[in-house]
Amino acid sequence: MMSKTITKEGISEWFMGLQDRICAGLEAEDGEGKFREDLWQRAEGGGGRTRIIQGRHIEKGGVNFSAVHGPMPEKIAKALNISEGNFYATGVSIVLHPINPHVPIIHMNVRYFEMTNGLWWFGGGIDLTPHYIVREDARFFHQQLKNTCDKHDALYYPKFKQWADDYFYIKHRKETRGVGGIFFDRLNDKTEGFTKENRLAFTQDVGETFLPTYTHLLQKNKDKSYADKDLAWQRVRRGRYVEFNLVWDKGTRFGLDTDGRIESILMSMPPQANWIYNHQPEADSPEAMTQKLLKKGIDWV
Amino acid sequence: MMSKTITKEGISEWFMGLQDRICAGLEAEDGEGKFREDLWQRAEGGGGRTRIIQGRHIEKGGVNFSAVHGPMPEKIAKALNISEGNFYATGVSIVLHPINPHVPIIHMNVRYFEMTNGLWWFGGGIDLTPHYIVREDARFFHQQLKNTCDKHDALYYPKFKQWADDYFYIKHRKETRGVGGIFFDRLNDKTEGFTKENRLAFTQDVGETFLPTYTHLLQKNKDKSYADKDLAWQRVRRGRYVEFNLVWDKGTRFGLDTDGRIESILMSMPPQANWIYNHQPEADSPEAMTQKLLKKGIDWV
Repeated sequence: MMSKTITKEGISEWFMGLQDRICAGLEAEDGEGKFREDLWQRAEGGGGRTRIIQGRHIEKGGVNFSAVHGPMPEKIAKALNISEGNFYATGVSIVLHPINPHVPIIHMNVRYFEMTNGLWWFGGGIDLTPHYIVREDARFFHQQLKNTCDKHDALYYPKFKQWADDYFYIKHRKETRGVGGIFFDRLNDKTEGFTKENRLAFTQDVGETFLPTYTHLLQKNKDKSYADKDLAWQRVRRGRYVEFNLVWDKGTRFGLDTDGRIESILMSMPPQANWIYNHQPEADSPEAMTQKLLKKGIDWV
Repeated sequence: MMSKTITKEGISEWFMGLQDRICAGLEAEDGEGKFREDLWQRAEGGGGRTRIIQGRHIEKGGVNFSAVHGPMPEKIAKALNISEGNFYATGVSIVLHPINPHVPIIHMNVRYFEMTNGLWWFGGGIDLTPHYIVREDARFFHQQLKNTCDKHDALYYPKFKQWADDYFYIKHRKETRGVGGIFFDRLNDKTEGFTKENRLAFTQDVGETFLPTYTHLLQKNKDKSYADKDLAWQRVRRGRYVEFNLVWDKGTRFGLDTDGRIESILMSMPPQANWIYNHQPEADSPEAMTQKLLKKGIDWV
């Protein structure tokens, strides 16, 4: 039983193991690319393992682990609405940009945060950004997430699915980043029925859901043929990805505001993004169909 | 004499004329591309003329005019630290992304703002972002700006040059966007010796400085040969341009926060930007020399 033994160091170690498993699984699936590792240290305390892959199917991907600690930067304390003190934050973050436009971009994050005053929480999520939305794939993706959620709490999926819809929203474009997924934050034991044990177990299950889910989508789509026009559209969608991450993503903004390791934060940037003035997909084209589905509140399952 | 006749409508008209002259000059210089115009209206009042060119030398460029008015959005009133009321804002904004990596990216903005309570000011500037910094070109560029400034006030150039260094700074990269230029804002008649007439005259002179300055740099460099590695570097630098505009540029952020016309605001985005994980130029390469010069406080003249 873990109940007496959940420590921040133990959680970090589990996250490192998750990073290892995911990297090994992605290398096997890509068949060619190998992760290159950069170890880094943070002057104020802690550090991380940034791992980057450029492969045959994954054009640019990052699977990062970090565990940082030290005095809480005032700016973050204020934004999180918590008192100052020493913090510990650890997690795994992933963004994969595939070569084939028929394979979706994926993002995952699982994280744990605690303060010396005893405050703690888990957060994270997985969301999918297809360049071309395929209903069957979106349904599979959401079903995977729902299965994982339902094992823990019947309210998790509907709540965290809506949270992802709201979070991964490109406000200035009035469109979602993709088909969403789940997003959760500040999961603690202040709600009846929830403990550190079951919050951790859920977060771990989300982490473990990543590899089989993405592997399936990669296998299914990686050998589909594509034309120049599909690549052109992929690069437009990647431009929107850049817009979301640099303008709206709170994690990215915090990292940039607080002197995080820039290359680890911006590993989420696509290898190439294009901007075409006032680009409008042709009526009834696959691009237009995708554009129409970039909205909140779709019940994919 | 204009002294009795400076009206917001008169200023807008002058800006429209400036837009026309610059567009005509750039079309002549490009020799192939023609501006395509989109007229747009703002629901709350006013509108603009967005003009976009894709040519033989200019890969993607925008020369925009707008004159918008209506009740001041609360968010902006707060940020500008002014009381609410009706505002009028008009100006010309330019960003040009050239095809040839040896031709620099350029940005210009001249603008006028007034409130119904009598508050008014001029703002603007021109700054240059060479993919490869050539000292001679940077010197020419700054000399042009200095000449224009010096005709009006001896303190303009040193003050506005430093303001540009501070403004066009990519804080998370610890580098400037390019070689800077001039940046000014809130120029009014509250300082001894300054009048609406001479502030307007200066702003107009800055506007008129744009075309001959960029034309010279374009002519000088547009036929230089370049290789794939130069294009690769250009796209990395364009990535930094995107990072500055989406993360730090106040004008862009305001536009996105306040529901401006997205395609006009984001005309500043490059046609293509690339992100390479932890890209480091080779020691003593032209790329490394440029990187070294991306800092504040260089006296280019």
